[in-house]
Amino acid sequence: MPAPHLRPDHACLIVHGKDQPGIVAAVSALITRNRGNIVAFDQYSDDPTGGAYFQRVVFHRPDLAAALPEIRADLESTLASGFDLQWSLTDQSTPKRMAILASKQDHCLLDLLWRHRRGDLPVSIPMVVSNHTTAAEDVRSFGVPFFHVPSTPGPDKSASEARILDLLAGNVDFVVLARYMQILSPEFLERVGVPVINIHHSFLPAFIGAEPYRKAKERGVKLIGATSHYVTSDLDEGPIIEQDTVRVTHADSAAELARRGADVERQVLSRAVLWHAEDRVIRHGNHTIVF
Amino acid sequence: MPAPHLRPDHACLIVHGKDQPGIVAAVSALITRNRGNIVAFDQYSDDPTGGAYFQRVVFHRPDLAAALPEIRADLESTLASGFDLQWSLTDQSTPKRMAILASKQDHCLLDLLWRHRRGDLPVSIPMVVSNHTTAAEDVRSFGVPFFHVPSTPGPDKSASEARILDLLAGNVDFVVLARYMQILSPEFLERVGVPVINIHHSFLPAFIGAEPYRKAKERGVKLIGATSHYVTSDLDEGPIIEQDTVRVTHADSAAELARRGADVERQVLSRAVLWHAEDRVIRHGNHTIVF
Amino acid sequence: MPAPHLRPDHACLIVHGKDQPGIVAAVSALITRNRGNIVAFDQYSDDPTGGAYFQRVVFHRPDLAAALPEIRADLESTLASGFDLQWSLTDQSTPKRMAILASKQDHCLLDLLWRHRRGDLPVSIPMVVSNHTTAAEDVRSFGVPFFHVPSTPGPDKSASEARILDLLAGNVDFVVLARYMQILSPEFLERVGVPVINIHHSFLPAFIGAEPYRKAKERGVKLIGATSHYVTSDLDEGPIIEQDTVRVTHADSAAELARRGADVERQVLSRAVLWHAEDRVIRHGNHTIVF
Amino acid sequence: MPAPHLRPDHACLIVHGKDQPGIVAAVSALITRNRGNIVAFDQYSDDPTGGAYFQRVVFHRPDLAAALPEIRADLESTLASGFDLQWSLTDQSTPKRMAILASKQDHCLLDLLWRHRRGDLPVSIPMVVSNHTTAAEDVRSFGVPFFHVPSTPGPDKSASEARILDLLAGNVDFVVLARYMQILSPEFLERVGVPVINIHHSFLPAFIGAEPYRKAKERGVKLIGATSHYVTSDLDEGPIIEQDTVRVTHADSAAELARRGADVERQVLSRAVLWHAEDRVIRHGNHTIVF
Repeated sequence: MPAPHLRPDHACLIVHGKDQPGIVAAVSALITRNRGNIVAFDQYSDDPTGGAYFQRVVFHRPDLAAALPEIRADLESTLASGFDLQWSLTDQSTPKRMAILASKQDHCLLDLLWRHRRGDLPVSIPMVVSNHTTAAEDVRSFGVPFFHVPSTPGPDKSASEARILDLLAGNVDFVVLARYMQILSPEFLERVGVPVINIHHSFLPAFIGAEPYRKAKERGVKLIGATSHYVTSDLDEGPIIEQDTVRVTHADSAAELARRGADVERQVLSRAVLWHAEDRVIRHGNHTIVF
Repeated sequence: MPAPHLRPDHACLIVHGKDQPGIVAAVSALITRNRGNIVAFDQYSDDPTGGAYFQRVVFHRPDLAAALPEIRADLESTLASGFDLQWSLTDQSTPKRMAILASKQDHCLLDLLWRHRRGDLPVSIPMVVSNHTTAAEDVRSFGVPFFHVPSTPGPDKSASEARILDLLAGNVDFVVLARYMQILSPEFLERVGVPVINIHHSFLPAFIGAEPYRKAKERGVKLIGATSHYVTSDLDEGPIIEQDTVRVTHADSAAELARRGADVERQVLSRAVLWHAEDRVIRHGNHTIVF
Repeated sequence: MPAPHLRPDHACLIVHGKDQPGIVAAVSALITRNRGNIVAFDQYSDDPTGGAYFQRVVFHRPDLAAALPEIRADLESTLASGFDLQWSLTDQSTPKRMAILASKQDHCLLDLLWRHRRGDLPVSIPMVVSNHTTAAEDVRSFGVPFFHVPSTPGPDKSASEARILDLLAGNVDFVVLARYMQILSPEFLERVGVPVINIHHSFLPAFIGAEPYRKAKERGVKLIGATSHYVTSDLDEGPIIEQDTVRVTHADSAAELARRGADVERQVLSRAVLWHAEDRVIRHGNHTIVF
Repeated sequence: MPAPHLRPDHACLIVHGKDQPGIVAAVSALITRNRGNIVAFDQYSDDPTGGAYFQRVVFHRPDLAAALPEIRADLESTLASGFDLQWSLTDQSTPKRMAILASKQDHCLLDLLWRHRRGDLPVSIPMVVSNHTTAAEDVRSFGVPFFHVPSTPGPDKSASEARILDLLAGNVDFVVLARYMQILSPEFLERVGVPVINIHHSFLPAFIGAEPYRKAKERGVKLIGATSHYVTSDLDEGPIIEQDTVRVTHADSAAELARRGADVERQVLSRAVLWHAEDRVIRHGNHTIVF
């Protein structure tokens, strides 16, 4: 995976739909006639005899911004009309706007803020929203706005969710749940209108739901893990972006599992965020294609 | 973990029971007064304020065989009577006798036979039993007896299980299921009287039961794994000895997952077998302590 | 990496040379006009502003064999003449012919033979050549010819190397040194005329030369590794195809390092052989691009 | 490895010297007669027939502080006089004082400060010393004093080293070089009088010295690594405490290697610091025993 810096005059084109002969040729001819030079090309068909087709192309094109409307029109007529494919084109000089939702645990939150400051994540961070105030000072020391939205007591989260939706509306391109300990309602997920990425502190599908480290200790596993996935209305069942594991022993308490798992969580989440921000991840049903 | 070769005049002592002050001192004094010199010592308490205590000691003692009755009497009076602890003592110059049960898939079976021939497993292999004949020639080329016990059709496995129990009775110290595709009945497990070690082709507790690679493909996981565990009457729920994982991608078919998983399976199983053969694994409820 | 089986009517095209705009478009148009459908496409430029360009395309083409001369002529005029690029085209229904050279250690040798028998390596194995006779029976039990070529005593290896060259000439597409303990002369490497792949039992460039496990023990490393590389006349300095490591501790003797390293060696070598056999590896100076 | 919190009334005893029969019995009897209860016990002999012996025992003893002089006297007469062994005893309720030396790169520095704030490192941090001012504000936001000691230009570092020695003298129990880019003189190492731990950004002994990521890119390795070791006057040759590796590809630039390596560096260093702080690491010549 190349360096994540924002690249002027580079565009990323995602194409997917029904596999058909000639897609690669059509896409590359289109890029060539629009004076682009391909710098990265990934392609995948889940069934060469007629399944789904996925493609990611990064190309360099001088004066990209001026040319975008023309390129988009060409894509629409060539791919959408000609091949019945879906496509999206993003300008890689524009960072995606990422909101972070967090609770008391700050390791994933601080890790993202710090990677962003180092220039390792091609995103902007317009806000952190938390149902606790503990991280406010830390977040603001990174120059990032912090909003405290207390969780509404009781099962009806609609008031606090409405407040969060107000903050997000129009301001963000995706949301990251950095160990956010509230379950978002299906209504929230429908209304938020942007992808939501979660980090779950187990190797899914093992230990779905609450307290996975305690459950891992009870089951006596020899590895623990973490999973980053897109959030859907099925808890911990959304498309997996990235996972990893680390070795533990009988001597590790549940608290020690949590301590060691924290390292895996922040690495897995940071890779998922990076890949999403670089348009490397395509959702397909409950799966992801990661180029 | 030191080299697994059989070691003359070395004994392995396992002690477990309720944690109490003075166990280490009592055990080490016992070994010293029986003219043993400790070469490896591992100890674990699951709760220092009064939980369960586990200890593994390997000691060298000239003329061990002659001294064993005396040492055993001393252990019985010191540990069993004095501390109410359970103990077992094995002579490390005597290989454990391992039977292998297999079906059509031969990768775990052949891997164990190879490692044994290389001198990497401190066991003897008195027999391989399979419900298929495909591996007969390979097994016998290693100088190991092969017995074909066809599975009884229908849900009642008692006839074939009885045949297997006849073969095993008195001849083996533990049994390894090297991708044996029959579910053993609770009656079999009760009557077999020796530990049974299985390799399951998933990272348990994910993908319990049949066809874990197909399920892994359907869930879209980014790692696959394998788990070796002691067999209990709860399918895939016994105490875990060892696990490992390997990275896969969206491009890997279920068949490719099976091909890559086969490497993890044989490594995980060979480690579990080695550790069991070296008396490194202590069962405690549904957990294992692996020293 | 998809399944390694031989695929009828599939061709693999490798293209490399100076990066220029329009290569992807030209190649994909060429495949389309020759009635091929692209099933895998990988591309890499080491410097988008004008470095070296590498591409691997697998395409399906009904009646491929009959069409190959025409496709080759088109490649020659389009890529070689038009773009000054190098190309090679292989028919993926034809297995590469792999000779294995071995010595006394048999773990890498047997692992390759066994993977081949399982259908996991898309190669044929016309011969195993060894300077010892120990593995003869094992090799022949896999239906593979075994030739014993004793090493010539003294520094001049020319007699035994000449004998090996006679056996290989015209019969093999690549050679694998599966822990072959003789250093091949520059003359041999020049005359053999096919790629030679070695497995070195260390994480290169650490512990070049003889006895890497002893050196690893002396240095007190906490991981050991293995490296598979193309052989050049600079000992252990050729282009690396694949590497891996495994954790060890202070308690592991040099013999134990060798035992555990054997597992890493056979995995690393088998991956390197698979990727070479699938035309996934492109050499570029002292580097490899692995698609 | 159990949780790293400071534990009142727990002592850690390290014993090493020439292996002799009866050491375990003598040590455990000593602890028992001093009313201690052993909670962890690790032991290693590098040669059971008469090599070096290493032991780490953690025991709980009510009113430990009051009993320490008596226990120390017993250790001196029993182990030093009786067995000619070296020993050290530390009170595990007292954190070790750790100074951090850093330069411009802040990832290892900030990682240690974060882990400390989370309670994951049983140390106190009396100071950070840097030859740059960039991290001053960050460091002080953790409540840790920051001292700027500019590097003396030219080969003679004695002025800046003298300044650093003044700051450290009497105030610290060990020093961590968190990507400190100055080579410390043998005189400094002699005068500092406490262990110095470094993180090197390669898998030693590969890529000793400057710019290991550039060298790794040039060699074309498929894994990069990091190594934490005690500093000696031989650059990058001191006893290794911990190492790890991560997979890279041909597509990763040297800058990308550095970015990904940063994650490995901070994990490897944090583990080395934790184990040193918990008295798990014993130096023996150029090796470490890590319990």
